[in-house]
Amino acid sequence: MVSRIGKEIEISPVELASQLAKKAKINLASGSPDPKVILISEIREAYNEVLEDVKSLFYPGAGGQEELKKEIEEHYLQFLGLSKGEDEIVITSGAQHAMELLGKYFLENDVIAVENPTFIETFNAIKLRSSVVIPIDLDDKGIKVDQLEEFLKLVKINLLYVIPNCHNPAGVNLDEERRKYLVELAERYDFYILEDDPYRPIAGCVPKPIKYFDKTGRVIYISSFSKILAPGLRIGFILANKEIAEKISLLEQLDFSTSTVNQYVVARLIRKGIVTRRMKELYEYYSRKMKVLKDSLTDQGLTKFNDPKCGFFLLLDLDKDSWKVFNNAIQLGLSFVPAKPFFLRGGDTMARLSITMSNEEEIKEGVSILKKAIQMT
Amino acid sequence: MVSRIGKEIEISPVELASQLAKKAKINLASGSPDPKVILISEIREAYNEVLEDVKSLFYPGAGGQEELKKEIEEHYLQFLGLSKGEDEIVITSGAQHAMELLGKYFLENDVIAVENPTFIETFNAIKLRSSVVIPIDLDDKGIKVDQLEEFLKLVKINLLYVIPNCHNPAGVNLDEERRKYLVELAERYDFYILEDDPYRPIAGCVPKPIKYFDKTGRVIYISSFSKILAPGLRIGFILANKEIAEKISLLEQLDFSTSTVNQYVVARLIRKGIVTRRMKELYEYYSRKMKVLKDSLTDQGLTKFNDPKCGFFLLLDLDKDSWKVFNNAIQLGLSFVPAKPFFLRGGDTMARLSITMSNEEEIKEGVSILKKAIQMT
Repeated sequence: MVSRIGKEIEISPVELASQLAKKAKINLASGSPDPKVILISEIREAYNEVLEDVKSLFYPGAGGQEELKKEIEEHYLQFLGLSKGEDEIVITSGAQHAMELLGKYFLENDVIAVENPTFIETFNAIKLRSSVVIPIDLDDKGIKVDQLEEFLKLVKINLLYVIPNCHNPAGVNLDEERRKYLVELAERYDFYILEDDPYRPIAGCVPKPIKYFDKTGRVIYISSFSKILAPGLRIGFILANKEIAEKISLLEQLDFSTSTVNQYVVARLIRKGIVTRRMKELYEYYSRKMKVLKDSLTDQGLTKFNDPKCGFFLLLDLDKDSWKVFNNAIQLGLSFVPAKPFFLRGGDTMARLSITMSNEEEIKEGVSILKKAIQMT
Repeated sequence: MVSRIGKEIEISPVELASQLAKKAKINLASGSPDPKVILISEIREAYNEVLEDVKSLFYPGAGGQEELKKEIEEHYLQFLGLSKGEDEIVITSGAQHAMELLGKYFLENDVIAVENPTFIETFNAIKLRSSVVIPIDLDDKGIKVDQLEEFLKLVKINLLYVIPNCHNPAGVNLDEERRKYLVELAERYDFYILEDDPYRPIAGCVPKPIKYFDKTGRVIYISSFSKILAPGLRIGFILANKEIAEKISLLEQLDFSTSTVNQYVVARLIRKGIVTRRMKELYEYYSRKMKVLKDSLTDQGLTKFNDPKCGFFLLLDLDKDSWKVFNNAIQLGLSFVPAKPFFLRGGDTMARLSITMSNEEEIKEGVSILKKAIQMT
C-alpha cells in the first residue's frame, strides 16, 4: 500500500556510520564542514539586516527569490567559471533538494549512469527512480569516459550523474579534456548530465565546469552554499536551460521548502563579498588539513589512496574488509565511513576519511588508531 | 524523456491569479498571512539567540531537530488538542513539504478521495501521483461523510485528503461527529486520512482534530507554523504512527530541505510562549477582518456564501463566470482568486476572497468594486 520509493527507502549508510561514530573520540567520518570556519557572526549580522523588512518572512516564490538569483548571476557565477547566458537559475533548498527535483523531473524507471563510487546520499534521489544504474569507474582523472562510451554504444541512458570536483568519496578532480568529451557524448548519445558541484567554491584552481563547455543545454549544473557558508541554511541552486529551469521551478510548488529569509541572507552575504572572499581562504584551510592526513597516512605506511586535490575526503584502500576495521576502530575511539555503500561494484576494503571535524592533532592520532585497527583485523 | 510528474506539473492557478493580481490596488487574492501581524522583532531576537551556537548552522538531521520535536511535544501539541502518545513527530519544511513527502510515500497511481473544493496547491502533490481522484462534496459542516461512504462501497481508496478547519477555499469547519465518523470509515474501508490543519493555530474554538479520535494510526496530522509565525521560515510538522513517521523521516534524506537554524528559531519561540500566546490574538484579529468582509458582502446584496468560522477565506458564488468577473475586477483595481481550479466538478461561478493583505477599509472598497465587476459581466 506504499509507493516504490516508500518501500525502497532506507537509512543512509553515511547516517548510520555517523550515528555509530558519535561514541568515538576522533571523528574522521562526518562530511559536515568544519564548524570552526563557519562565519557565524557575519551570518547573524545578515539575519539582523534582512529581518528589518517583513518581506523576508513572506512565502518564497517557486523558483527562488529574484534578489538572490540576481546576486548569483551578477556577483557569483563568474567565480565558479560560469555565466548565465541563455540559462536560468533556480534556487533550491541545498544540492540534495536539487537532486530530488531533478530526479522527480527526469526519471520514471529509466536507465542512468553514475560514477563508481558515487555519493550515495545525493545519488539515492535518482537511484530510487531508475530501473537500471550503470556504474562507470573512476581513476585519478575522474570518470573513465572511454568505459562510459563503450556502455553508451550498447545501452540508451537518460542521465549521467557526475561530481566533477573534490569527489565524494574519491577526492579526485575530473580532467578538463574529459569534461569536454562528456558534453560531446551527451550530444551524440542523447542524454543529460547532472553536474553536482558543491565543493567547487572551496576547490581552489580546477578546470571550468562541464556546464561551461555545454552549448546545447545538456548539462544541469548544481551548486550549494553549504560548504562555503553553512549547511544549516539549506540554500543551493541549479543552472539549467530555460525549459528545464522553468519545469524545476514549477516542481518546487510541490514542496515549497526553500526558506525565504535564508535566501535573503545568502543574497546579502554575496553582496557583501563575504562568499567570494572565503573561497581562497577555505581552500587553503582545508588543503592544510588534507596535507596532514596524507602525510600521516604515508608515515604509517598507508599509501593506497588517490591524492585528493581538494575537498573533505580521501578514499583509502585498507586491504581488509572495511566494516571489520570500522568496528575495531570504533572500539579504539575512531570513526570513519566504510565506503562499500558508495560503490555499485567493489569497494569492500575502501574507507572514506574526512578532515572536517578533527583538528590537525586529532587527524594524526586518528590515523595511528586506524593503523592499529587495521592490524587488529 | 521526462517523468509523469515532469509532464503534468503546471503553474498553480493561485500563483497565476497572484501574478495577475499584482497590478490591482486591492488584494483579496493572496493567501499569505497579514504582514502586519508577523512578529518580526521577536523572530529577529530568536535568530540572534540561536545563532550564538554554531550547531544551529549544521546539517539538519533527517526527521527534524530533537530540540524542536521536544518543544512541540511538551509545549504545543496540547494547544492543538493532541498529545504525542505512541505517535512520532516529523519536522517538515512547511505543510506543503509534508504533503509532498506523504504523496511520495503512499502513492503510485492509486485511487484517492478529496474534498470538493480542495486547496489545489497542497492537493497537487497527491494528485500527480494518483490515477483516480474522487471528489466528495462539502456543505457547511465540512465533507459529506454519507457521500464518501457511498463511494467507499463501490471503490477502494488509498488516501483521503481533508482540511478540517477554516477550509481553504470554502471557509468551513468540519463537524465533530463527522470527524469521528471519518475515523470509523478509515478503519472499515482500510484507507489513510491526511488531515491538513495549517489554520488550527488561529482557528479559535474548534472540535478536536480527526487525529484525536484515531486509535489505530489511520490519521496523519499535518501542521504548520506559517500562519501563526511566518511562512518564510518554512517549518511545519507531521504527527503520525511510528512506522509511517520513521519512513517519512527517511524520505527527508532525499531532499534534506529543512533549515536547521529555522528549526531552532521555532523551538525558541515556542519555549518563550510566543507561539501559544498568539493563538487567541490572531484568531480575534482575523475574525474582525472576516466580519468586515461578510458585512460588506451582505450590504452589497452578495449573500451566497458559507459563513466562515475562522481563517483567511470566504467562498462566494458570483452567479456568473468567475474568470470573466475577475478580468473586469482587475480592470477596476481588485484582485481575488477565481475558484474553479479548486473544484474537481462545478465551481465555475465561485470566487475565493481573502482577508489577509487588505485592511478593513480596503476590504470594504474591494467588495464594492466586486459588486461593480459583477454588474459589468
